[in-house]
Amino acid sequence: MLLTEQPLAKKWKNMWIRTITTLLMVGTFFAILASGHLFVILMVIAIQTLVYSEVIEIAQVPAREKNMRWYRTMSWYFLVAATYFLYGESIIYYFQEILLVDAFLLPFATHHRFISFTLYVIGFVFFVVNLQKGLYKRQLAQFGWMHMALLLIVFQCHFIVDNVLEGLIWLVLPASLVICNDIFAYVCGFFWGRTQLIQLSPKKTVEGFVGAWICTLVFGFLWASFLMRFDYMVCPVKNLSTSAWSAVSCEPKNPVFTAVPWELSQNWSSLLSKITGRHVTEVWIAPIQLHALVMACFASLIAPFGGFFASGVKRAFKIKDFGQSIPGHGGWTDRMDCQFLMGLFSYMYYQSFIKTHTASVGSVLATIVNNLSLGDQLELLERILTYFVNQGILDSSVLKNKQNKCLNNDFSLK
Amino acid sequence: MLLTEQPLAKKWKNMWIRTITTLLMVGTFFAILASGHLFVILMVIAIQTLVYSEVIEIAQVPAREKNMRWYRTMSWYFLVAATYFLYGESIIYYFQEILLVDAFLLPFATHHRFISFTLYVIGFVFFVVNLQKGLYKRQLAQFGWMHMALLLIVFQCHFIVDNVLEGLIWLVLPASLVICNDIFAYVCGFFWGRTQLIQLSPKKTVEGFVGAWICTLVFGFLWASFLMRFDYMVCPVKNLSTSAWSAVSCEPKNPVFTAVPWELSQNWSSLLSKITGRHVTEVWIAPIQLHALVMACFASLIAPFGGFFASGVKRAFKIKDFGQSIPGHGGWTDRMDCQFLMGLFSYMYYQSFIKTHTASVGSVLATIVNNLSLGDQLELLERILTYFVNQGILDSSVLKNKQNKCLNNDFSLK
Repeated sequence: MLLTEQPLAKKWKNMWIRTITTLLMVGTFFAILASGHLFVILMVIAIQTLVYSEVIEIAQVPAREKNMRWYRTMSWYFLVAATYFLYGESIIYYFQEILLVDAFLLPFATHHRFISFTLYVIGFVFFVVNLQKGLYKRQLAQFGWMHMALLLIVFQCHFIVDNVLEGLIWLVLPASLVICNDIFAYVCGFFWGRTQLIQLSPKKTVEGFVGAWICTLVFGFLWASFLMRFDYMVCPVKNLSTSAWSAVSCEPKNPVFTAVPWELSQNWSSLLSKITGRHVTEVWIAPIQLHALVMACFASLIAPFGGFFASGVKRAFKIKDFGQSIPGHGGWTDRMDCQFLMGLFSYMYYQSFIKTHTASVGSVLATIVNNLSLGDQLELLERILTYFVNQGILDSSVLKNKQNKCLNNDFSLK
Repeated sequence: MLLTEQPLAKKWKNMWIRTITTLLMVGTFFAILASGHLFVILMVIAIQTLVYSEVIEIAQVPAREKNMRWYRTMSWYFLVAATYFLYGESIIYYFQEILLVDAFLLPFATHHRFISFTLYVIGFVFFVVNLQKGLYKRQLAQFGWMHMALLLIVFQCHFIVDNVLEGLIWLVLPASLVICNDIFAYVCGFFWGRTQLIQLSPKKTVEGFVGAWICTLVFGFLWASFLMRFDYMVCPVKNLSTSAWSAVSCEPKNPVFTAVPWELSQNWSSLLSKITGRHVTEVWIAPIQLHALVMACFASLIAPFGGFFASGVKRAFKIKDFGQSIPGHGGWTDRMDCQFLMGLFSYMYYQSFIKTHTASVGSVLATIVNNLSLGDQLELLERILTYFVNQGILDSSVLKNKQNKCLNNDFSLK
């Protein structure tokens, strides 16, 4: 059933409700954003829990029918265990300088994975002990379902927390892109939607899909250049009590936030000069704005498959929405289905292509001097020189020179 | 059906076949062990693949019935993607000092997670696109099943490879404990088995369970003290081409392999003196022998739940064995069901309680390549060279030579 076939009055009323709740949600989001990193992280955990409970609840109905023991208890147990493991990893990574000097917290930090593994094994043994004759297949299917929910929700979600700790912009930018894409897919589909996009989601149209992509590209480019002006957005978190009213700064900033001049070709230059009425030979663009374009493409072209997957789940269990928590939108899962995949993408993209240099020369040198044997130190020197030669930074004669010296020294050591 | 109720002739024939194949497998295992780390790792990957294919094949039967597209292709695709991701992580961690200086491999190392993520997303999108009306629920169930197989087999298995790279003993000791426990559970159950242990596995008896535990404790204590005498077993791998005939050494060794004297209390001392006929006041025990006792407890008390879980799966799909690959034993999954859980435990236990923290050339190099800017890298090189010159290890002419090259390059970069 395409949108155009709905009665017009209902269509408008629907849009009205949806607009109000969208605005309310966006407002709440920005309020939480301004309250500080801690509240943002708590929000992410809360949303993750709501989505997980909706997804587990879907499989709970047949579980209750069959009088299956402990299914809900076990699902919550594994949620707690997985959350403990994953968020613990993030906290240990980002706050080790605090944790490792605290006598009470130290064993939790150094044995974190063993504790998490023990929690998992307890749940696993409990599951096996509670296998009931005649229900094996169903219980195993639900165990599999729970694992998939843990992977696709809790595991993906914890990367969003890592994004927050790297700087709020890595949450806000991708989340905004998805929201923008959702809104414009709805708006473009509402006005021009004609051709059905995919059987799974009958309300999605090709016109909405393409229109939203174009709008998201433009929005991402502009929104990134706006967000990057705020240190509160850009700086990695040093202290969880920071809020929008704290004085935050981090120098030197990641160079992606610094606009650099791009020289224009003849044609573009004359075109832009005509439009603006001034002589334009270069434009200033920050790398983050180009990264935002890549993210916008993912938000428009790939992230919706998270939504299609959720639609498949709804169809499989013959439900319309995952819940009724958000008027006009359905449940939390209906609204967040694309956000998780987007968050994971942002994490991977950021870690792979954007993150810079967190170690200092001093700390690395201290490690080399204190924790490596003399033989290892000399081997490291070889490797560094080889690396520089391969990168074309040093001439290969240096390496040869070096090797001879080392050989001499090796002999003198013996 | 308890063992005692089987016809005696069949019982003996079964035991005979099982003994021969067990001996053959143990022999092959030791031959591979002696051939070197590379072959051990290939063996682990081969076993992982066999087990995964058996588990996927079980769910394949209903898939074929329902004419489900691409299920097998997709399962193998995700296996390859997961293997690439997980083993890549291990290889990067252990061999970064080689990878990071190789111009071709460097981008694969630094963008490994992003590449893996891309592989996963491709599979995910492919799955969503291939969702077929009327089969949603079944396809989702199999997607969940596949995720569980990936987690319980591939994910657990890759820790075994990490164990191998930390030293062969961390594979051999836990694997032997499980085999020993299996054999003595069978032997004790065969002779004294009366009381059924768990409904899921009717052939398992309480007498076998307890008897095997005691035998495994004794075996673990002795076997550990034997294995720790070989450098080939004990040393972390530096070079994948090492075999049992290579000259391997690593000094200083992890202190768990060094026997220390334990003073005996009055009672124990007189007891032991009576038994041995000599005056005994202390015993020499290496920490690894005590760790072996903990591992033996896990192998006897918890690891069997991996087997019970596999029994549950067999019952759910109404099959007797996972395959017929190993005469007298069934399929590979039937034999390996406890090994994976044991391998994961050994990894967690080793990392948490046994590993000694020393920096490696690879980890320092990774920090330098990934976390320092080019300017900082060059500054670090200066400092290292200065340090060596000051220590009288290198001639000061090296430093001068070095500086000129760098300066030249700095200019040419601008």
